[in-house]
Amino acid sequence: MTFANAGTLGAVPGRRDELVAHLTKRSNLLEKLGCLTYEVGINDDEPETVFVVEIWESAEAHRSSLAAPEVQASIAAARPLLSGAFGGFRFEIVGSPLRD
Amino acid sequence: MTFANAGTLGAVPGRRDELVAHLTKRSNLLEKLGCLTYEVGINDDEPETVFVVEIWESAEAHRSSLAAPEVQASIAAARPLLSGAFGGFRFEIVGSPLRD
Repeated sequence: MTFANAGTLGAVPGRRDELVAHLTKRSNLLEKLGCLTYEVGINDDEPETVFVVEIWESAEAHRSSLAAPEVQASIAAARPLLSGAFGGFRFEIVGSPLRD
Repeated sequence: MTFANAGTLGAVPGRRDELVAHLTKRSNLLEKLGCLTYEVGINDDEPETVFVVEIWESAEAHRSSLAAPEVQASIAAARPLLSGAFGGFRFEIVGSPLRD
């Protein structure tokens, strides 16, 4: 069952766009780990937040990805850009009106 | 610029699965209105919530869709299933690590 993670990441003031650049850096690894969608965005009403929507082949694929050394290194590299504020939600996808 | 809406909809106790069925009913209209992705899901940790992630061609396409008569009718039909609790966030998509 595919799995979705919709999240908000607080950025250190003035460093939102660096965090966006970091999160959107091209990665072939994510696809190999089972990531189907990974959209990164901003909302000018919340100028110190980066938003992400991820869809994964399964909750397990998402969980496993977090342990991959390259992903761990990427998280470590992002740390100086993060304020520590996180939000969002996760769910198992059960359907879509766009497909049968 | 594509636009994302990640939302939580509170269901009337015991009616979550009806709300899921309503939201996942096949619609050709949504695509015509500019909806690119519409994933609906659940999380057993929050058994009275339905989760959605939508991606639209633009914020304007999403806004316009809400005024379409068929969408208005669908929202009205869902109303008895909704507790009135809503959450989530919206953002402009600026990139993805899965594409150049």
